[in-house]
Amino acid sequence: MEVMFKPRSIAVIGASEKPGTVGRAVIENLLNSFKGDIYPVNQKYDLVFGLKCYKSVRELPKTPDLAVVAVPARSTPELARGLCEIGVRVSIVVSAGFKEVGAEGAKLESELVSAARSCGMRILGPNCLGIYDAWSGVDTIFNPGDRQSKPGPGTIALLSQSGALGAAILDWLAESEIGMSKFVSYGNAADIKEWELVEYLVEDPQTKVIALYVEGVEDGRRFVGSLRKAIAAGKPVVVLKGGRTQSGVRAVTSHTGALTTSSDVFISAVKQAGAIVVENLSEFVGLLKVLEWSGPPRGRKVAVVTNGGGMGVLAADEVESKGMALAPLSAESIEKLKKTLPPAASPNNPIDILGDAPPERYRAAMEIALSDSEVDLVLVITLMQSPAFDPLKFIELVRDVRSQSLKPIVLVAPGGGYTIKYAKIIERELRVPCFKSPEEAVRVLKLAGEWYEKYAGGTYSKLD
Amino acid sequence: MEVMFKPRSIAVIGASEKPGTVGRAVIENLLNSFKGDIYPVNQKYDLVFGLKCYKSVRELPKTPDLAVVAVPARSTPELARGLCEIGVRVSIVVSAGFKEVGAEGAKLESELVSAARSCGMRILGPNCLGIYDAWSGVDTIFNPGDRQSKPGPGTIALLSQSGALGAAILDWLAESEIGMSKFVSYGNAADIKEWELVEYLVEDPQTKVIALYVEGVEDGRRFVGSLRKAIAAGKPVVVLKGGRTQSGVRAVTSHTGALTTSSDVFISAVKQAGAIVVENLSEFVGLLKVLEWSGPPRGRKVAVVTNGGGMGVLAADEVESKGMALAPLSAESIEKLKKTLPPAASPNNPIDILGDAPPERYRAAMEIALSDSEVDLVLVITLMQSPAFDPLKFIELVRDVRSQSLKPIVLVAPGGGYTIKYAKIIERELRVPCFKSPEEAVRVLKLAGEWYEKYAGGTYSKLD
Repeated sequence: MEVMFKPRSIAVIGASEKPGTVGRAVIENLLNSFKGDIYPVNQKYDLVFGLKCYKSVRELPKTPDLAVVAVPARSTPELARGLCEIGVRVSIVVSAGFKEVGAEGAKLESELVSAARSCGMRILGPNCLGIYDAWSGVDTIFNPGDRQSKPGPGTIALLSQSGALGAAILDWLAESEIGMSKFVSYGNAADIKEWELVEYLVEDPQTKVIALYVEGVEDGRRFVGSLRKAIAAGKPVVVLKGGRTQSGVRAVTSHTGALTTSSDVFISAVKQAGAIVVENLSEFVGLLKVLEWSGPPRGRKVAVVTNGGGMGVLAADEVESKGMALAPLSAESIEKLKKTLPPAASPNNPIDILGDAPPERYRAAMEIALSDSEVDLVLVITLMQSPAFDPLKFIELVRDVRSQSLKPIVLVAPGGGYTIKYAKIIERELRVPCFKSPEEAVRVLKLAGEWYEKYAGGTYSKLD
Repeated sequence: MEVMFKPRSIAVIGASEKPGTVGRAVIENLLNSFKGDIYPVNQKYDLVFGLKCYKSVRELPKTPDLAVVAVPARSTPELARGLCEIGVRVSIVVSAGFKEVGAEGAKLESELVSAARSCGMRILGPNCLGIYDAWSGVDTIFNPGDRQSKPGPGTIALLSQSGALGAAILDWLAESEIGMSKFVSYGNAADIKEWELVEYLVEDPQTKVIALYVEGVEDGRRFVGSLRKAIAAGKPVVVLKGGRTQSGVRAVTSHTGALTTSSDVFISAVKQAGAIVVENLSEFVGLLKVLEWSGPPRGRKVAVVTNGGGMGVLAADEVESKGMALAPLSAESIEKLKKTLPPAASPNNPIDILGDAPPERYRAAMEIALSDSEVDLVLVITLMQSPAFDPLKFIELVRDVRSQSLKPIVLVAPGGGYTIKYAKIIERELRVPCFKSPEEAVRVLKLAGEWYEKYAGGTYSKLD
């Protein structure tokens, strides 16, 4: 498996310069990000983007560590035999036209797997986008570069049973500047299974969080076992399950057909293993942002600091209704707040520092809240429409305040262009998660805090 | 009330050129957008932004239709007597320092109201941001223009008990290019009550949707009565209630203190009157976008069209779990889809037109779905990372397809920079609501469809 993520050389079978082809996109990706040797293979060409192109895999000057296969499905079993002969250990088959298209494709798929198994070659896919490794530069995600952005290096690994959905999430994470270690679209999982990938990621030092989109698995016992290993290693696992309802299950049937157990049984087993099951895509991305940047809070007791009373009210409603709690501030904290804040402010939680709050008032309230032992995290609401809010000074003070505590600071900044611009700058500069509304923040913080309470007990170290 | 929204002349008491003052911001707003006469009043100046400035309201050359008061709280009762003397009929008091700061402020507030009532002058506020009327140009929202954007003309009226929260929503709506008729921040509601504003909006031809952020009301019976009138007039009412939980209620106590009845009783009365109660801010803004642009669907039966199977699965899950339903397509529709789509596509709902779907495939699937009598709306998923997706052709085909049906078309477009850019263009060009994920779309469509089923029965005409 190591060879798949960190090959020294890659052969691309079906390499091409022809615009719009998968073979071209893969070569372009690799030229762009991969530092090892690249061997284009295509009987039609002598050169591809200036690289010598080989007529067949048997002509390659040396055995590549990894082969990326982008040729029509019908040619893949024969090709696999060729790859076997020259001693390739792993192939990523991005070609479609296998099990997902019916009986004939299923037959091709088992021929492909048999050919590979005869020599012990492993296969990722078929019918997948393959791998994006932000650290090693392996990148077979063949969507056009102007449409498909990819995250920079980070600690999140994402496995997706659906290629297109995985690619959309990748794009979303990249736009949010959330870093990633590895992305794997494993497609039909004809050979390499999702549980093997999870087990690899448990050992992978670059991965601290494992995220999965999954519709179903073949071997539930092993899958759940792999999740347990991840939790035991202190790595949170986040699962988005496609097919949670009867309607979803019917849709899965015509998509991957990948259902072996009832959805309820699956979800409860996954939860029991210690994974966090999210309800939807926004929760998925939001939770990954929190895990990657601030790490999970040690519990669910929030202090809210706000420069708008109404937003404080909405945050309090969300905190209670989503299963968190407003931290009861100590008498000492309340006394300090009373001394520091103006008389019209509220020293109780939510701490309302009023619409005219200058940066120093934010600083005082945040410091007092963070140092209160009842507080697990601080949710800071910034209504940047207020003329008193100074975004640049705010960045400096958060940088400073944050260094005094391991407790997460999470921002809520609702608004338009100005707010969006500075929320983005704050995220980029500080890696402090910003959400557009209290509910978006609270629903993921609840999941993260609850996970920490149940499973982290000392094994989970703050992500840095 | 008409005079407040459509005055021919406005006096600004406390007008100033001094940077950072409310008096300056209000004058700048009015110079920017108001076409009638503006009379600055401030004993310190002779000219304000080139306009003759009057030392006192008694010196004004004629009686202004509306007075905007931005002077310290303690001067307002005396000022109100002056405004009364010259015959002003409505004043917006944006000054703070009244009931919200304690007993002394409460005393000032009742003096202010008494002074106004002695001559029948009405007062909006105090402690409010006042009014933004996108059509008449009246604009007292005094946040700095670079931080606070404001929507263009449209059909949504927003009333907010919280000024800062209202301003943030205004900013968010503007960024989303959702049009608005009127925004009113009514603050302490010392004189003009929210129910009077609702009743005015029921009669207002520019307003087709009434949205409220409210923490509590003084006269629940009249408030609920005003909502009933709105529903009877075919205008949907959307309510975001601050203080839905015990924690929220405690926060309200230190914010507006505006609770007269239990939150559950309030919410159920509001729902019974026919208003839509949203759970949170994102739902609020999302629902307003749907009501403003596409109008509500006539029911909750959705056809999903997708170029990604996994996203179709997630959409199906959301549809069922949020209380909508996948429309059962007629045998005829399924037959047509089978004929039109490639064999690997799914002609059942969700209609999976596959990752390589060109625009024509979208067109065919959307047309067939829209013409099926079981379908109330079409949810179209566009994974724009796919090289086959052509955003410009897509815009043209949606424009065309939409003209054939009154059923709403709503988009889901998850992704990064490219996707966000084209989703924005689609919204701007077509006023077709785009959401980032299925759940964000489905939860608001459910509320809109349910409202239509229960209350619209012919009275609600499609918003244009």
